Amino acid sequence: MSKEKILKSFGERVRELRKKNGLSQDELSFKANLHRTYIGMIERAEKNITLINIEKIAAALNVTIKDLFNGS
Amino acid sequence: MSKEKILKSFGERVRELRKKNGLSQDELSFKANLHRTYIGMIERAEKNITLINIEKIAAALNVTIKDLFNGS
Repeated sequence: MSKEKILKSFGERVRELRKKNGLSQDELSFKANLHRTYIGMIERAEKNITLINIEKIAAALNVTIKDLFNGS
Repeated sequence: MSKEKILKSFGERVRELRKKNGLSQDELSFKANLHRTYIGMIERAEKNITLINIEKIAAALNVTIKDLFNGS
């Protein structure tokens, strides 16, 4: 899978789960203890996210890290 | 899960799969197109790996990204 594709599919998955949880990007950023604009950049595949931040987002969305990669 | 714990469990999983594939750290680094010492640092939980490099390691180990997070 190309670099862009993996970031894109990850961003789409985060957006899907965020909306499922009824959270705004700001609310998810706050819950995950990440900068306010960070979630937007992840969802637009503009950042190459690190494992520690992947774990923070999974925890904030109440899913496992594996769940964030369903389908990839 | 704490920062250290997620890096540690990821590193252990990479080591487990690398050995299962009969690869040395150098061979896996080469296959994944990563610096020679990088795999060692990941296995010792010394680096906060990025998603693009997670995907490179998964491809080099012939597994999905999800497989790298079995059990986490």
